[in-house]
Formats: sequence, structure tokens, C-alpha cells
Amino acid sequence: LKLTVAYDGTAYVGWQRQANGLSIQQLLEAACAPFTGDRASEVAGAGRTDAGVHAMGQVASVDVHSDLPVETLRRALNFRLPLDVRVRVVEDAPPDFHARFRATGKRYRYRIAAGAVLSPFDRRYVWHAPHARDVAAMRAAAAALVGTHDFSSFQSSGSEVADTIRTVRELEIRVEGEELVLEIEGDGFLRHMVRAIAGTLVDVAAGRTASSDMAAIRDARDRRAAGLTAPAAGLTLVEVTY
Amino acid sequence: LKLTVAYDGTAYVGWQRQANGLSIQQLLEAACAPFTGDRASEVAGAGRTDAGVHAMGQVASVDVHSDLPVETLRRALNFRLPLDVRVRVVEDAPPDFHARFRATGKRYRYRIAAGAVLSPFDRRYVWHAPHARDVAAMRAAAAALVGTHDFSSFQSSGSEVADTIRTVRELEIRVEGEELVLEIEGDGFLRHMVRAIAGTLVDVAAGRTASSDMAAIRDARDRRAAGLTAPAAGLTLVEVTY
Repeated sequence: LKLTVAYDGTAYVGWQRQANGLSIQQLLEAACAPFTGDRASEVAGAGRTDAGVHAMGQVASVDVHSDLPVETLRRALNFRLPLDVRVRVVEDAPPDFHARFRATGKRYRYRIAAGAVLSPFDRRYVWHAPHARDVAAMRAAAAALVGTHDFSSFQSSGSEVADTIRTVRELEIRVEGEELVLEIEGDGFLRHMVRAIAGTLVDVAAGRTASSDMAAIRDARDRRAAGLTAPAAGLTLVEVTY
Repeated sequence: LKLTVAYDGTAYVGWQRQANGLSIQQLLEAACAPFTGDRASEVAGAGRTDAGVHAMGQVASVDVHSDLPVETLRRALNFRLPLDVRVRVVEDAPPDFHARFRATGKRYRYRIAAGAVLSPFDRRYVWHAPHARDVAAMRAAAAALVGTHDFSSFQSSGSEVADTIRTVRELEIRVEGEELVLEIEGDGFLRHMVRAIAGTLVDVAAGRTASSDMAAIRDARDRRAAGLTAPAAGLTLVEVTY
């Protein structure tokens, strides 16, 4: 099955099973258990979102042994899940479907609250950065990140990934009221990459980094060249494409 | 001072001080304490929102003895408040200003999630009513509530208010994606009135009550004629006018 899943990540250690707390994967595996037969079946997610990161359109694959219609399965899974984790869609998938290995792209959104006062309704879903004011500079800097590049300057230090080349197909910055919304789409993302990009772009918007430095920061291939990793709360996995 | 206050009411017993838990009023009075001199000054709110009800534009009045600029006071108050209660604006007000007695109107919003699956991000702020489908009938029924009427059919039973006549100046029902948004503006509202109206309109949208019955329900002046009181979570005090 292909599951499209939304969650408020505030209360969780992230997508992946961890010893130190509840993960989304663990909850979904427990919810699927009655339908996966006698063996425990892994629920594979397209993106391993970190602790506190949200999803509107995470995609997961799981093998089930059930003749129930997909609508009934969706209701049964949601009945077995807490309200901050919802299966939005259940679909039949071909036997060789795997949510992670078959993904061709992901879209993330990073929300920045730039007003003086943080809305009590948004506090779990945004980064409050009232000093982020220069949107034009932010957009100019963002342009240097679109395309195929080595993004190791934006990879969490300590990661060991052989291939740090990724393609960012789109990086849009929208102004919605007092909010700045970064929307980024690409073939894949390194660990903490979107949050490191958000942190660096806020440095630009706050006047701490020049937008003209962005290409050099990118080409430094050194995590210390870029800005801090922005808080997890602002990040949402919006969509996975296949 | 005139304070414009936003809060996520999920964790609170409501606006008004209660023995059984934390109220918004109590938090604001504690935050204002350093500025109200040696006597404890009441923070008066325009609307006594119930437990779990939210506000984007609650208005409160308080006497302070301070020469600090209003911007500085706002920052100081927010520093002393939890993140789910925010003072959006602090303004100087004339000595005879009183948030409740001077209010000439209030606007409330009631959000109904009508999709099959409740979004994990909205769960604290909406009523999940997937059976609410007939928006045209809902709008026809709503028309019977606009104007000056005795609204005792929509007042929580056990209330003892001498005057149950109120004027609803506007009652709009918007469709926003899978959501139905009721927006209601009037000179004042009886206890639970907006929620009883929302509950009755959802009965109409679900086909349990005919829209043509709404005038008779209103004129019955009997709480039992109307539908159930809708959950507090869906309700937000949007604005108070003076």
C-alpha cells in the first residue's frame, strides 16, 4: 500500500524509530499490525523527518495482507492513531513500490514569522524571526541555490553521505501577511539541508550576511560557511513525487 | 490601557478567573502586576470566552501606573506570559474606557472541518463534522438568525439574563477548501449562543433539521428547540468594536 500521511511533529522524535521516544514510523507500524499478517512489516517513509518536523504529504509504503477496501483501511488506521497523526489517503501500489527508493522529488515548506508578536496559533509551526526583513536580498541569495550543486555546506556536520550533489528545482520565497514562506523542491535533500538553508537566508534577510556571498558559501563545501540550522518547528514536508 | 490579546484557549478554563484552573484573565493580571501599583488591578475583558475557546482580538482594559512607552509595555507583558497568550497591541485609553461596557460589537468565527480526515494542524481549532455537507441549506437557515431577535433558544440552559434580545448584524458562511467557516457579528451574544447556532446549522447541513424550521426554532424561545452546543475548540473571538 501507498499511504499519504500528515502529522504534527511537535510531540515526536521524528519519522524514524528511536530508543528515546515515540516516532511516527512506530505509530504507523503499530496501527498497521492487524493487517500485515504474522510478520511485523516495516512501514518505509519517503523522508526521515527530524524531531519536531511536520508533514502534510509524507508518503509511506507497507505490505499488507487484507482484502479490505482502501477507504475502510484508512478509517481503521486513523482509528488506531493519535489525532496528531492522520493517514490522508490509502492507495494500492505495485509490489515493487518503495516510498523512499522510488521517490523522484520532495517539496518542503519553511515558515518564518517575521512580525513583532508571534501568533499563539502558529507557535508550533513557524520560526519566530522578527529581524528577517529584507525579502529582496533573501530572494537574490536564494537564486544561488537553485540548480545542481554540491550542498555539503548545508549538510549537518557529522553526516557521512557519499554523494552530496543535489538538484534544487525551485526555491520560492512568498510573503503572506507577516509571514515569509520558503518553498523548496528538489530531487532530494541532505540531512538538515532545508533548515540550514532557512537559517542562512534569514541571516541574509537580517543583514548579517550579504546576498552576494551566497554562491561562495555554497562553494565552500564547509558547514561552517553557512548559517545556523533553523528550528525544526518551522519545517513541513509538503509533498513527495514519484 | 487598552490591550488587544490573542490566545490559544486549549489549555485554559476560559477568560474568567476560576478556582479549578488557569484563566487568561489571571495570567494577564499577573503579567500586569508590576505596572498596576500597590493595588491589584482587575483586567476587564470584552468577552468572557469559555474554556477551550480562542481569541485573535480579545480586548481588555486595565489601569496601570507607568510612564513606559506602550511598545515597551507590550514586550514586558509578553515576556511575562506563556507563548499561547500574546498581547498584540497596547494602546493608551481614556480614563473612562472599559473593555466590556464600552463594546458596541463583537465578531466570532466558528470553524467546521467537513472533510473525511481531520488535519492534525487544525485539530485544536475546528469542529470535525464530516456530515456537514449541504451548505446551501445552511445559508438559508442562517438568514433567519440575522436581525434583532430574542435568542433565548440559543442560550445555555440555566442562564439568567434579563434581556435575551440581541442583534446579529451579519452571519456569513464561507467555504474554504474542506472547511466551512461561520463568521458572525452582532452587538453582543448570550452565553453559548454562537456555539448553539453552529450546532443547529450543522444539523441543517447534515439534513437532520430543515432550513425552513429555523425561524420556528428561533421563535420557540426554548433551548430544547435548537441543536446541541458545538465544541468550544471551533470558536474564536475575532474582533471587538467600540
